[in-house]
Amino acid sequence: MHKIGYLGPEGTFSQQAAQHYCFNKQEAALVSLPSIREVLLSVQRNELDLAVIPFENSLEGSVNIVLDVLAWEVDLLIVDELILPISQTLMVTPGADWERISSVYTHPQSAGQCRLFLETHLPQAKVYLTSSNAEGANQAQMSGRTAGAIGPEAAADKFGLQVVLRNIQDKNNNFTRFVVVGKKSIHLPAGRNKTSIVFSTEHTPGSLACILDIFNLWDINMTKIESRPSRGQLGRYIFFIDIDGHLSNPDVRDALTMVQRKTNFYKFLGSYPMAEID
Amino acid sequence: MHKIGYLGPEGTFSQQAAQHYCFNKQEAALVSLPSIREVLLSVQRNELDLAVIPFENSLEGSVNIVLDVLAWEVDLLIVDELILPISQTLMVTPGADWERISSVYTHPQSAGQCRLFLETHLPQAKVYLTSSNAEGANQAQMSGRTAGAIGPEAAADKFGLQVVLRNIQDKNNNFTRFVVVGKKSIHLPAGRNKTSIVFSTEHTPGSLACILDIFNLWDINMTKIESRPSRGQLGRYIFFIDIDGHLSNPDVRDALTMVQRKTNFYKFLGSYPMAEID
Repeated sequence: MHKIGYLGPEGTFSQQAAQHYCFNKQEAALVSLPSIREVLLSVQRNELDLAVIPFENSLEGSVNIVLDVLAWEVDLLIVDELILPISQTLMVTPGADWERISSVYTHPQSAGQCRLFLETHLPQAKVYLTSSNAEGANQAQMSGRTAGAIGPEAAADKFGLQVVLRNIQDKNNNFTRFVVVGKKSIHLPAGRNKTSIVFSTEHTPGSLACILDIFNLWDINMTKIESRPSRGQLGRYIFFIDIDGHLSNPDVRDALTMVQRKTNFYKFLGSYPMAEID
Repeated sequence: MHKIGYLGPEGTFSQQAAQHYCFNKQEAALVSLPSIREVLLSVQRNELDLAVIPFENSLEGSVNIVLDVLAWEVDLLIVDELILPISQTLMVTPGADWERISSVYTHPQSAGQCRLFLETHLPQAKVYLTSSNAEGANQAQMSGRTAGAIGPEAAADKFGLQVVLRNIQDKNNNFTRFVVVGKKSIHLPAGRNKTSIVFSTEHTPGSLACILDIFNLWDINMTKIESRPSRGQLGRYIFFIDIDGHLSNPDVRDALTMVQRKTNFYKFLGSYPMAEID
């Protein structure tokens, strides 16, 4: 039986993603853990086989803790990805008037995705940030008719709340990209693939341009670039880059060999099938 | 009298930064507002002359809401910057045993800066995220001896809590870069300067490399690059770049003219004196 970890508790978008990933996989048991770091460290310690982790959202951007742990704390590979539509719902105690609630409980990512809704439709409500959307629904349920929560519909079901509005995020098209991480690849190269790396360059002018020119030289398309402060220094960055193609492709292999030569920190984060938007 | 806005309430790092900026400026009145977006919009509507805004932290990275509002919602210029050391302190009810607290109230940025401390020294404590560190101290004070808060020492003073540990962030060198924004520049070009821009390129291979090559061509040093999802599309990004030099420098002017030619969205965010680390 494969053990697959996710950020719990039950009733989070991460649980939905993990269930989606395990659909039709008979030999999988889902394991809920209280923090993303704990989920990743558990895979590193072989206590889990795989983990399904939120990586970036189309409105709020990357999940910093995931980037930092993958870069510095574990040696894990991205083995798969899923892109799921995210509908943020407003939920209240059954029968309560949502326009009169004075407090809203939700996770910072969901609050960030619903900023305009909160400022426009609930200016009187105070926003309390919670460690998960399930916890937010729990808090709202305990607070009674003057409170609401924002999160996945599943959280309403779990905590006996009523969904009063759906798709309240600031853009209709709201997607989160989840990645599946493990100790070794699980797919052979077939179809369209993506490769993820993280690196830092010398702190000299043109050093990042040099790396991007390498991908140009080998005609490799870059699909993502993201910077993070490098080990806590303002003005020094590490870069997360995704490119089209699998490491088994000679061009990808040669380009990445050159990238290694031109960087002072380099880590391969995996080649895996590119997700279609579900 | 100049009105200078900041993210309140009193007892936040933003208030400290605003006070630091106004030190020795006789004609300034500080105005506290409840959200960063509200602070920026108030400057846009001429209700404030300037605002002091957290921009990036050396441990947690950029403040997303600032990037998004500057890119899409307002036409403001960065006119100055400050880099301040940030000491996260743990505060509890006077006389309480900090190792036994069961809950910690703090802002997500501070929680992110103290992740390892929380997991290592307070594994039993539940972390409640608040809209500001001042609000966190307020909640901890109301919750009594089983609760603590993380934030600036000023918050402990304001809410009658006792500081039990200082510098509990995950790295000793913890800095936040604050920017001062307004409608027009307030400094003449003198000394070392920085220029900030935001842009997006065509979604074609090599388009970002082309922009970075422009800076190379004009021998301009890039001090920051940061990506954000572009108006809510996964895989499309806008880029925030800081370069050395002032727009009045002919090389900077010519390079940025070329950058405008090669981008499909471009916004100048200001030329301003480069901060020394205080």
